[in-house]
Amino acid sequence: METPTTTQQELFISTEAMLEHWQGHRNLTRRVIEAFPEDKLFNHSIGGMRPFAHMAMELIDIALPGVKSLVSGQWENVSEFDHTKDMPSTKADLLKLWDKTTEVINEYGPQITSERYQRVEVAFGQYENHNYSTLLYFVDNEIHHRGQAYVYLRSLDIQPPFFWER
Amino acid sequence: METPTTTQQELFISTEAMLEHWQGHRNLTRRVIEAFPEDKLFNHSIGGMRPFAHMAMELIDIALPGVKSLVSGQWENVSEFDHTKDMPSTKADLLKLWDKTTEVINEYGPQITSERYQRVEVAFGQYENHNYSTLLYFVDNEIHHRGQAYVYLRSLDIQPPFFWER
Repeated sequence: METPTTTQQELFISTEAMLEHWQGHRNLTRRVIEAFPEDKLFNHSIGGMRPFAHMAMELIDIALPGVKSLVSGQWENVSEFDHTKDMPSTKADLLKLWDKTTEVINEYGPQITSERYQRVEVAFGQYENHNYSTLLYFVDNEIHHRGQAYVYLRSLDIQPPFFWER
Repeated sequence: METPTTTQQELFISTEAMLEHWQGHRNLTRRVIEAFPEDKLFNHSIGGMRPFAHMAMELIDIALPGVKSLVSGQWENVSEFDHTKDMPSTKADLLKLWDKTTEVINEYGPQITSERYQRVEVAFGQYENHNYSTLLYFVDNEIHHRGQAYVYLRSLDIQPPFFWER
């Protein structure tokens, strides 16, 4: 385990600002979910890709246990994120899960110390990385799939929320 | 200008690791550019959105002056990123500009100090933010548009590079 201390490294962004950055992105993603017509959220697809509801459920399935594991260092083994298992069937239920995740991140996020972020761990039993990279992966993966949702919305003639509004 | 010092804040990620993270993303985006057939790079579109060559050119137009301004604090005023102005007409020329940008980031990036990242400045004369947020915006904007390129590629029956390979 590499555990450099903060004094050895130059600060780019603080733990607190990073959580705020993440929640800003999650706030935008929530509005992208809302922008979809109910049926299109669950069935619109391009090029054989998943409907956006499934992508959003993957984001929840990563963030909800992920933020707790970043606190505790205990990672459950996940061979594949089976976002279809507990897939909600309505937009309202998906948003309810989204908001529950927001609360869990608000509760657990501030408990993740700088020292924890500098540790190398095997996230979900298979992704070995510094914990800061693991959290960045959560955020990057969300931006990636939300970018895809923008194309879905545009293909449906729906204007997505502005990317820079968080 | 807010200029908190590193001792007041808990490190999430270091300046050095953040640059590595950015270049990892840029390496993936380069492979996404390469994955497009020459003509589709410049003319494939969904829902009235820009072809990916134009999005990639926007990323270059932001990163190239952006990294220098993050060093110097001198921002040129940009009312709109006119990526069509010097738009290359071939994939090879676009990749040449991409690689030039990679070199400029490798040269200037390490000169951006932690103290510079904590400053609030008006990027490109219109986006007021901490400089760390400005750099995160560069990266997030790249992930966002590259996610859209994944849909373009899938719609053309082309398998994009794996998201997690950097």
